[in-house]
Amino acid sequence: MSRRTPTGAAVLQPQVTEAITEAVLDELAENGYARLSMEAVAKRAGVGKSALYRRWASKQEMAMGVICAYSIAMISVPDTGTLRGDLRASLDALTQWLTHPRFARILPDLVAETARNPELGEVVGLLVGEPKRERTAEIFRRAIQRGELPRDTDIDLALDLIAAPVYWRLAVRAAETGLTYLDDLTDVLLRALSATS
Amino acid sequence: MSRRTPTGAAVLQPQVTEAITEAVLDELAENGYARLSMEAVAKRAGVGKSALYRRWASKQEMAMGVICAYSIAMISVPDTGTLRGDLRASLDALTQWLTHPRFARILPDLVAETARNPELGEVVGLLVGEPKRERTAEIFRRAIQRGELPRDTDIDLALDLIAAPVYWRLAVRAAETGLTYLDDLTDVLLRALSATS
Repeated sequence: MSRRTPTGAAVLQPQVTEAITEAVLDELAENGYARLSMEAVAKRAGVGKSALYRRWASKQEMAMGVICAYSIAMISVPDTGTLRGDLRASLDALTQWLTHPRFARILPDLVAETARNPELGEVVGLLVGEPKRERTAEIFRRAIQRGELPRDTDIDLALDLIAAPVYWRLAVRAAETGLTYLDDLTDVLLRALSATS
Repeated sequence: MSRRTPTGAAVLQPQVTEAITEAVLDELAENGYARLSMEAVAKRAGVGKSALYRRWASKQEMAMGVICAYSIAMISVPDTGTLRGDLRASLDALTQWLTHPRFARILPDLVAETARNPELGEVVGLLVGEPKRERTAEIFRRAIQRGELPRDTDIDLALDLIAAPVYWRLAVRAAETGLTYLDDLTDVLLRALSATS
């Protein structure tokens, strides 16, 4: 029996997808979403534009597809056994994420673009923000089960409180966090949430 | 005695400055800092480029001058007599600021640009961020004097906590705040800061 190459449906070579993915992330980090073009990505990846269109129908689909795959892979929810430990680990992870050479540029750029293009904001929220929030909510659900947090804890607000100060400090203020800041912030968050630990 | 028009030093007509200021803010809101150009501003303001260069030496100086004047004029520090009242009023003011049709676009755009151009970030921090923080710190100093906050309150962290959740929710997540959210956030912040009120 001979193995046949499928016809009709295009064969997407993984190494080409990988090269395109890297090119999209580089272009987003260097030039931003508004200036992203299929031409620039194809050129940087060393492929023809048809290789892009075989995978995605439009610039927005391409950018969202790449960002989504990249971000979802980076989600990791700590499970240290205590709310304090989980919060501290989450703050560390956020700090790493927001000081990552690529993401430190890509995320604020998408936020700026969202203000000009609300539809893009909805897509980013749906594909990136919500899955991350849904996974991170586990931290609070486990803390409620352990009796560390009140049963009526507002998880929606609690999720904002983890991410917001780190983003504000690193991305908006371009200030430093540093170990003491993250320790102090952990204490503050535990008080804010009326944690018993 | 006749009044003489000064010679040598250019006379800067206020209505021209006003038209340029509006044009800079519109360009920043619509197209962002990266695509801001002296040409586009002059065209939109209906003046020659020389009118711009008479006022500012460069695009960065022009943008920072306009943003600084605009932002400083918008700083208002509430003084309601209680920390709770001041926090709630601050959250309202921030919400207005971040849903303002112009500023909702200009600030996230500058944040994105800062990630690509750290020098710009330093200038924005120095001219806009720090004056606003210094003024807003009065809220916490007064609360300490009234005995509503511990003497050793970390004002630097407290300032982050007011602004961060509103920015995160409105600008980054493109979600809503709404009255209940701001009320709940006020309660959370009072607990976070170990306020006695």
